[in-house]
Amino acid sequence: MNDVTPIAADRGRNDWLAAELHRTGPDTPGGRFMRRFWLPVYRAEDLPKGQAKPIRVMSEDFTLYRGESGQAQLIDYRCPHRGAMMHLGWVEGDDIRCVYHGWKFACSGQCVEMPAEDEGFARKVRIGSYPTREYMGLVFAYLGEGEPPAFPPYPMPLAAGIVENQAPPVVPCNYLQCFENSMDEVHVAFVHKIGGSHSGIYDLPEIAAEETDWGMIRYGRRGNPGALGERISLHYMPNCTRVIVPPMAGLDGAGGWRELYLAFTPIDDENNMWFITNLVGVTGDQVAPYQAARQKYLDRQKAAGSSLDLAQAIMDGDVRFADIDHPDRVRVQDFAVQAGQGRVADRSNERLGKSDTAIILWRKIMEREFRAIEEGRPPKQWTPAPAAVVPTLGF
Amino acid sequence: MNDVTPIAADRGRNDWLAAELHRTGPDTPGGRFMRRFWLPVYRAEDLPKGQAKPIRVMSEDFTLYRGESGQAQLIDYRCPHRGAMMHLGWVEGDDIRCVYHGWKFACSGQCVEMPAEDEGFARKVRIGSYPTREYMGLVFAYLGEGEPPAFPPYPMPLAAGIVENQAPPVVPCNYLQCFENSMDEVHVAFVHKIGGSHSGIYDLPEIAAEETDWGMIRYGRRGNPGALGERISLHYMPNCTRVIVPPMAGLDGAGGWRELYLAFTPIDDENNMWFITNLVGVTGDQVAPYQAARQKYLDRQKAAGSSLDLAQAIMDGDVRFADIDHPDRVRVQDFAVQAGQGRVADRSNERLGKSDTAIILWRKIMEREFRAIEEGRPPKQWTPAPAAVVPTLGF
Amino acid sequence: MNDVTPIAADRGRNDWLAAELHRTGPDTPGGRFMRRFWLPVYRAEDLPKGQAKPIRVMSEDFTLYRGESGQAQLIDYRCPHRGAMMHLGWVEGDDIRCVYHGWKFACSGQCVEMPAEDEGFARKVRIGSYPTREYMGLVFAYLGEGEPPAFPPYPMPLAAGIVENQAPPVVPCNYLQCFENSMDEVHVAFVHKIGGSHSGIYDLPEIAAEETDWGMIRYGRRGNPGALGERISLHYMPNCTRVIVPPMAGLDGAGGWRELYLAFTPIDDENNMWFITNLVGVTGDQVAPYQAARQKYLDRQKAAGSSLDLAQAIMDGDVRFADIDHPDRVRVQDFAVQAGQGRVADRSNERLGKSDTAIILWRKIMEREFRAIEEGRPPKQWTPAPAAVVPTLGF
Repeated sequence: MNDVTPIAADRGRNDWLAAELHRTGPDTPGGRFMRRFWLPVYRAEDLPKGQAKPIRVMSEDFTLYRGESGQAQLIDYRCPHRGAMMHLGWVEGDDIRCVYHGWKFACSGQCVEMPAEDEGFARKVRIGSYPTREYMGLVFAYLGEGEPPAFPPYPMPLAAGIVENQAPPVVPCNYLQCFENSMDEVHVAFVHKIGGSHSGIYDLPEIAAEETDWGMIRYGRRGNPGALGERISLHYMPNCTRVIVPPMAGLDGAGGWRELYLAFTPIDDENNMWFITNLVGVTGDQVAPYQAARQKYLDRQKAAGSSLDLAQAIMDGDVRFADIDHPDRVRVQDFAVQAGQGRVADRSNERLGKSDTAIILWRKIMEREFRAIEEGRPPKQWTPAPAAVVPTLGF
Repeated sequence: MNDVTPIAADRGRNDWLAAELHRTGPDTPGGRFMRRFWLPVYRAEDLPKGQAKPIRVMSEDFTLYRGESGQAQLIDYRCPHRGAMMHLGWVEGDDIRCVYHGWKFACSGQCVEMPAEDEGFARKVRIGSYPTREYMGLVFAYLGEGEPPAFPPYPMPLAAGIVENQAPPVVPCNYLQCFENSMDEVHVAFVHKIGGSHSGIYDLPEIAAEETDWGMIRYGRRGNPGALGERISLHYMPNCTRVIVPPMAGLDGAGGWRELYLAFTPIDDENNMWFITNLVGVTGDQVAPYQAARQKYLDRQKAAGSSLDLAQAIMDGDVRFADIDHPDRVRVQDFAVQAGQGRVADRSNERLGKSDTAIILWRKIMEREFRAIEEGRPPKQWTPAPAAVVPTLGF
Repeated sequence: MNDVTPIAADRGRNDWLAAELHRTGPDTPGGRFMRRFWLPVYRAEDLPKGQAKPIRVMSEDFTLYRGESGQAQLIDYRCPHRGAMMHLGWVEGDDIRCVYHGWKFACSGQCVEMPAEDEGFARKVRIGSYPTREYMGLVFAYLGEGEPPAFPPYPMPLAAGIVENQAPPVVPCNYLQCFENSMDEVHVAFVHKIGGSHSGIYDLPEIAAEETDWGMIRYGRRGNPGALGERISLHYMPNCTRVIVPPMAGLDGAGGWRELYLAFTPIDDENNMWFITNLVGVTGDQVAPYQAARQKYLDRQKAAGSSLDLAQAIMDGDVRFADIDHPDRVRVQDFAVQAGQGRVADRSNERLGKSDTAIILWRKIMEREFRAIEEGRPPKQWTPAPAAVVPTLGF
């Protein structure tokens, strides 16, 4: 495997991949691929009834609002009249009224009222409307053509516990760098060495990966005697990793290692939003003390200032990586390494090795799917992942 | 009228208009058109004697200074020697001396002194100089070729009162969005509904507009019994609206509804400066209490922070439009809607209706004039507006 | 000389020069020229043992670190594996280990360890490594091909005293504007008139300049009876000026006029870093009081805020040039004038005169050398400057 980077075997193919792999705009192969899936676009608790928010997903702007029925609605960003932002408007029932001239749109996108225009004009005007669903604390949207695929996009945890969603950070680099990092178990022993959070998995694994009907399963095989003798992590199509991780530094161990669903939704090609859902395995009497510890952590996090600003100072050389002191240390470490690859990493001169096995497989899958889409051939039909396939700690 | 957008009737014409209407750079049809008029470029009270300021108008930089005679002078931005900014220099009499090597220029642009160079060089060097005039508290400039048109560019108010000029905000979008908004009476009932400042004209008008020798007159016809049965507003070529409006929220009604001259001067294609001249109809004993109320408003305004920053937070979705609390609420509302159309609004997919009647007429006038300029035909000869044509409140 | 700008005599040549003179990217004539010399890239005292810093020189990024031997090392910016920033990593001895997956590189650039990869891969991977040397408190690098030229790049001062290096500011314009300003003695009487720091040389000189084997010698001839009847300043190839200057305003005259080595290293085409080395002629008992005065100045400097921010406010027209009040007044004056020429000055329409004699000669030298490089002819072989040629005060 070493120095036999599959991607580098063919220069023309390499160039095409390096140019296309990370792109998700509406007219790109990757953008067409990604739009075939449900994607998380907002944390549900951040969208109260009656409020509208502007969001940007894969280089397109939208208006997200929650009507009085409680259902999240996703429509176009601008009013078709003279281009005002729809999120400035009023949510009325499950409809929304533009702030500029009071044009009212049903959540279907159909214009239903134009106060200062003649009868009959409204019915001729319709804007885009996109399906949304909620699951595990997140609002998902389907931005593609035709019928959306099955919902939910991935199974719930089997274990009991509390489902938490962290406030989603906007990370200043392409989503694929972050997603690939989540397939890269070896980085843990180096990037997260300082602080010791991941010390249970510091010994270096042999990596294996295999494609499944719903994405990819990844194995980190170590010599240590684990529950299963290996660490299993899951990658759900097209952008979600499910893995078992330790708590943030600021939690002082509260709640122990937990299941993490980490979905990387592109904002545009140079920014992505991390949707981080944790299943913390506390139940019954453990819950109250855990929530108290979590509140303390949230207070520390607030007092510590922006983890993204700290990561930027590290990338700029103003703060040393070794000196990171933050309740979200592991996240600062990840931001600095991943955004440090550049807003869009240059993959044309990489030297991949056997530790990149999972990344190499994922890129092969993407390349196959992108080419099918480009050439008009049917892409793979992905199916819902079985609930019984779960990540393991492996030690 | 509905759904019969004149602009959309012909795709090629629509594309040309959408590309050119808003542009004012020196080599564009719009830029050549706009440069045939006097334009306000600075608030007179902000330019003390002996000071020089850099200004940018229609994508060109200039140096504005006020010499000891009190006359505002407008010359090129840079010294022709090695490109230093002229506003760093010394105003001497009505001349200006470059800070870099002491080259002195008369307000005509003629170089008259080069301390470290041979005799005879200075007379060979001349920079651009542009006519300026002052009127109603503003400095106007003529940036075109040949002789400027008649001055003043529009008549004084007939009514007695105080003339005030607000500090001109730099609004982060193309001037035409703001100018078109000022032709759009229907927006008042929606954009300015919260706060109630404009409640006297919340009932929706029928809009009519007609071209005049000096610009456009606009009628807002309502069922209510007004002084004239209709509300009249004026649009002076090429960028000024004269209208009757209520006082800012922070004035608590002081001075009552007043005449507003609102001129939108392009800084470049993505920014414009609002020159806001008010005629507040207070006289005699009313003046002192009004000035006291105004000072209180200015203090509140200062304490409230930047209205533009608040508008940006609204556009970003961080503050709700409904939650605006600012002494300049109406301006924040306007900024958010107009700059919210984008730095340059995309007019190619608008759905105009009968409420857009005045905007449609103005665009037709611009299109006709731009084409005349492009094709070398004589443009319309605009004449000074008669003082007797005044805006009315209409209720 | 007046109005006979050599550069303007031939329009095509002028255009080529205006386009190329300032550029230093790796594929430009100027970039290839500049890469034939040692250039200062960091202040030595800012690079402790064991630390790594990102630097950018002539539009290329690098990693600078100081190993345990004390030698500064300069290598490529990114790890060749998957593009992590090398300065995030660990300095180990004189080697550096990438933070991402622990790949370790010798200071030669050779990869010597890949913890999670097969034996044999490491020896196939090598990154760029560049020679560094230290001199007079600065780290110099050679970024060109083949063997570097003789070191040091310029002689030490003959006079006894303290060598000081100021914290290098990043000035937001092309290096050549700043370098040309340092060849321009006439600007002193105007730009630095306010504050009076340079009053000893306010009378205007006749400028002469001659090319030497190591750069250019410049004469400022005045009527005043000086030690030599003229002021001599030196310009070492390719970017360093040596001159005698007064102390900063905030030093209140402490240390008197001193020798200044001022090297302008391009960061990219729109930014440059000033490396400012002073020889302050204090010895013996004078040293302690001077150091106390200098500490007081440094405290004032810190309290006064960023001189670059103040210069920007002046360029923006928010603060008057005449109102500069800062311990580094002369530097603020210089920043405003030089960065005020634009990020890259437009040299295509300059009107050079006899006061620009030295600048004109320097440009001729650069043009000749750039053309030789472009046309594959051997460029001039520059030799080390003799220590006996020193700048003089001239009054």
